[in-house]
Amino acid sequence: MIKEFEVLTKERYELINITNKVERIVRESKVRDGLCFVFAPHSTAGIVLTEDESGLKNDWLAVLKKMVSGFDFFHNRIDNNADSHILSGLIGQEKTLVIENNKLIRGTWQNIFLIEFDGPRTRKVIVKT
Amino acid sequence: MIKEFEVLTKERYELINITNKVERIVRESKVRDGLCFVFAPHSTAGIVLTEDESGLKNDWLAVLKKMVSGFDFFHNRIDNNADSHILSGLIGQEKTLVIENNKLIRGTWQNIFLIEFDGPRTRKVIVKT
Amino acid sequence: MIKEFEVLTKERYELINITNKVERIVRESKVRDGLCFVFAPHSTAGIVLTEDESGLKNDWLAVLKKMVSGFDFFHNRIDNNADSHILSGLIGQEKTLVIENNKLIRGTWQNIFLIEFDGPRTRKVIVKT
Repeated sequence: MIKEFEVLTKERYELINITNKVERIVRESKVRDGLCFVFAPHSTAGIVLTEDESGLKNDWLAVLKKMVSGFDFFHNRIDNNADSHILSGLIGQEKTLVIENNKLIRGTWQNIFLIEFDGPRTRKVIVKT
Repeated sequence: MIKEFEVLTKERYELINITNKVERIVRESKVRDGLCFVFAPHSTAGIVLTEDESGLKNDWLAVLKKMVSGFDFFHNRIDNNADSHILSGLIGQEKTLVIENNKLIRGTWQNIFLIEFDGPRTRKVIVKT
Repeated sequence: MIKEFEVLTKERYELINITNKVERIVRESKVRDGLCFVFAPHSTAGIVLTEDESGLKNDWLAVLKKMVSGFDFFHNRIDNNADSHILSGLIGQEKTLVIENNKLIRGTWQNIFLIEFDGPRTRKVIVKT
């Protein structure tokens, strides 16, 4: 089963917790045991598993911004988002999780986040169970 | 079904668009709905989804090279490719995509690339549908 | 089939080769052809495919530590492990491999590692075939 939902982002760089939306799709799928595949069909956003704590979200963005700072990017002469493409690729746009007894197996602090790298935009997330 | 193809790389570091090759395998598999798993059985190359634009490909390599610059790597006393192993692991050697109606679901700018980090070489890509 | 095993880590940052443990689960699963999904249900550890060479393991840790050095992390006022969360998310906590003839397809130098970023701890690894 394939389902999708939209996420509205407000900042250029932003982490948005999508765990509840993915878990609702898993519940409604009635799949007892299997895999849940989460995918952002975008090249300037990513999917990551991390803790939902406001300070940590700022720390994440500080580290990611530093990785792409101090460059004179060629791509920015065409479209000013080389940083967004590179961070999206580094983080990756997909995550796979295990479903057991109709629930996602995930650690206590493992939340599923969409990371926006070129917002604000309307993003799509595809979930296959 | 498992298929594989070869990619000849020409540079030490290089991004090579393999989208057409993967999509042909998906078409020929006749799989209507499912998953497509792309894997490089190598520890000094990676698989990434990003835009195919020549400036951006240079920008990618600049960021990746900087991540592994300024170190005196122990591994280089054995084999001069610590940078290649580390970047391969950071980028990852596998990507999963969704097949719907015998087509890959992917964003407009999401192309599938093999990234070479220790070329020139002949690389193998494994595709399971 | 879902199996799990524990890994005891001894250092704050450490790479631990878990290839043998994953391969034993694959053998015992009797799965001939399919996928093997390896998952760490943790937000301060990761799973990576890389070469098992002691110098390279040190080089890996040097590169990762530098990525999160020189920051005054907000999260550390709550819990002193912002670095651990960010590196775990960057490396990712999951890998997928192909099983063919009851064996994992992997390159000569591709070993499966758990990377500890906030040890020493007891870690869990989940393997679904």
